[in-house]
Amino acid sequence: MTEMMKAAIFVEPGKMAVEEVPKATLEQDDDIVIRVVRTCVCGSDLWFFRGLSGQAAHSQVGHESIGVVEEVGAAVESVKPGDFVVVPFPYSCGKCPVCKAGFESVCPHGGYFSACQAEYLRVPEADGTVVKVLGSPEDYSDEQLASLLTISDVMSTGYHAAASAEVKPGDTAVVMGDGAVGLCGVIAAKMRGATRIIAMSRHEDRAALAREFGATDIVPERDQAAIDKVLGMTDGYGADAVLECVGSKQSFDTAIGLIRRGGVIGRVGLPHDVEISAEGTFYGNIGIKGGPAPVRHYDLDEGLLDAVLKGEINPGRVFTAEYDLDHIQDAYEAMDQRKVIKALIGF
Amino acid sequence: MTEMMKAAIFVEPGKMAVEEVPKATLEQDDDIVIRVVRTCVCGSDLWFFRGLSGQAAHSQVGHESIGVVEEVGAAVESVKPGDFVVVPFPYSCGKCPVCKAGFESVCPHGGYFSACQAEYLRVPEADGTVVKVLGSPEDYSDEQLASLLTISDVMSTGYHAAASAEVKPGDTAVVMGDGAVGLCGVIAAKMRGATRIIAMSRHEDRAALAREFGATDIVPERDQAAIDKVLGMTDGYGADAVLECVGSKQSFDTAIGLIRRGGVIGRVGLPHDVEISAEGTFYGNIGIKGGPAPVRHYDLDEGLLDAVLKGEINPGRVFTAEYDLDHIQDAYEAMDQRKVIKALIGF
Repeated sequence: MTEMMKAAIFVEPGKMAVEEVPKATLEQDDDIVIRVVRTCVCGSDLWFFRGLSGQAAHSQVGHESIGVVEEVGAAVESVKPGDFVVVPFPYSCGKCPVCKAGFESVCPHGGYFSACQAEYLRVPEADGTVVKVLGSPEDYSDEQLASLLTISDVMSTGYHAAASAEVKPGDTAVVMGDGAVGLCGVIAAKMRGATRIIAMSRHEDRAALAREFGATDIVPERDQAAIDKVLGMTDGYGADAVLECVGSKQSFDTAIGLIRRGGVIGRVGLPHDVEISAEGTFYGNIGIKGGPAPVRHYDLDEGLLDAVLKGEINPGRVFTAEYDLDHIQDAYEAMDQRKVIKALIGF
Repeated sequence: MTEMMKAAIFVEPGKMAVEEVPKATLEQDDDIVIRVVRTCVCGSDLWFFRGLSGQAAHSQVGHESIGVVEEVGAAVESVKPGDFVVVPFPYSCGKCPVCKAGFESVCPHGGYFSACQAEYLRVPEADGTVVKVLGSPEDYSDEQLASLLTISDVMSTGYHAAASAEVKPGDTAVVMGDGAVGLCGVIAAKMRGATRIIAMSRHEDRAALAREFGATDIVPERDQAAIDKVLGMTDGYGADAVLECVGSKQSFDTAIGLIRRGGVIGRVGLPHDVEISAEGTFYGNIGIKGGPAPVRHYDLDEGLLDAVLKGEINPGRVFTAEYDLDHIQDAYEAMDQRKVIKALIGF
């Protein structure tokens, strides 16, 4: 008899459901199965919820999770049942030149999770994917668990924006986007030593959190007005680094308009119909770097896990509401309507 | 009575002349005037020679030179008459945030030279622009003078491609373009520790020089065949870094096709009608950096001047023919017809 589990199901644009589906099981020797302890709804989930990107009807969704190892495949060496792990949104082999270069998120042998909003999750290529956390979830506060959940995606993605933008001590950094990723980008810019952090936000709650995270200035303007504002704040030279956490053409054009010549735009917003003029950026020596965040690399090699465990950063503050899985529709709607910054799903 | 000098003049596409024009003189307090000792024809000069880019008829041209200081303006502090200097193709203030960040080539207070193919040259913002060389031209061999001339542009530009591509020890680097800049890019990739350097070339003379400079492999294929070749040489993963020294859409597309995920394309080829799909590069985490090379930064801060003076690099080998100013038409024609890699103009 097939064991079952509860899982969030995308029914159709605007409509989520919770259904009983076959429980996640081991399929390959390098798989593990985890019991999900926390998952959440991502801003990028809103693309399918709003009907703006393709997603099969009646499919499982979700790509962020932390959990406890239930079962391990025969080839798995790094974790055992009972271990507590962060599951980065990309899975990766951990061994190829792309992974070794610190880009596990684009490992050609890997992929992206799409079934994390559920009670159990199969994790392929476990040894190259998961980030082990000492102890068990019970050893951590709700706040710590929330922050650990962010290093499965949004905190690591914000860090990728800052690292790609080459933020360094003393820099003036601009953060485009005041969603969870942008807010985590503020944390990351501060971690990397930026002394002036300009957050682009026109929402009071988000601006307040940006300030708490280290933003020194809030700019609510957009387009040319935003460019003029930042140029005015930097003696006309522009910002040393820009964290582009939106992905729209509008955001990109603004980023190019307000960055200092020679600066790098670190981009993590999923681009939608954006073409970059090679000439426009060339004559300003403007660099563009980024993509899906190599979560594991930043969590382990750049110290995000340690920073969370030591309480040096508290990115879990981006979760402004918590739901149980049965109320997944409410969680999506609250995100869609911008009533919450990011919705946590507890079990 | 106005003093006169000989200068190369662009008459019309395909036609250069040497004419007597008023001798370069001091105009501002921070100017110097140099007596040009060596200049040369650049691949980018062929754009106007071929009628492919705008250039005023009967105008002076040329942006590469080394020379001896003749006169200094009242505010100049760093050089005096008789000093030997390399003149980077961009002039720059040397003091603003853009210059301090190492991007003198895009200093908002600066510009680009366009009258170096002449007996004398006015250098604005001299203190922020020139690279002083010990002694005088007579202290150096013709080979050394040729190499010093390359660090006014092509060697520094090749280095900018490698630095922008973030070439590091152990890398496999691909160099697109076998002109003087691409060949200097090979030198730069080697200086930065690349252990495999793949030069894209289908010209025997250039391929031979690429090998002399450190290329380990020559790939004559283009487009998909070139991509397939490089992927085959790298277990399917692609090259760690690409130096894009052409600027065409064809070259760019090939670069994107053969770079390893997470790699950076360092671009110094002047882009002509190139649009970059933000999506295509995003999902591979492919970075794009570069633009006009901050010559002075590389010459002084990254050691190009020292490397030339110590004979560690010999980029002057890109000059395969020498002309005097009176034969400027021959120099352009030889470049245009690819009879020479780069044409030196001596005095």
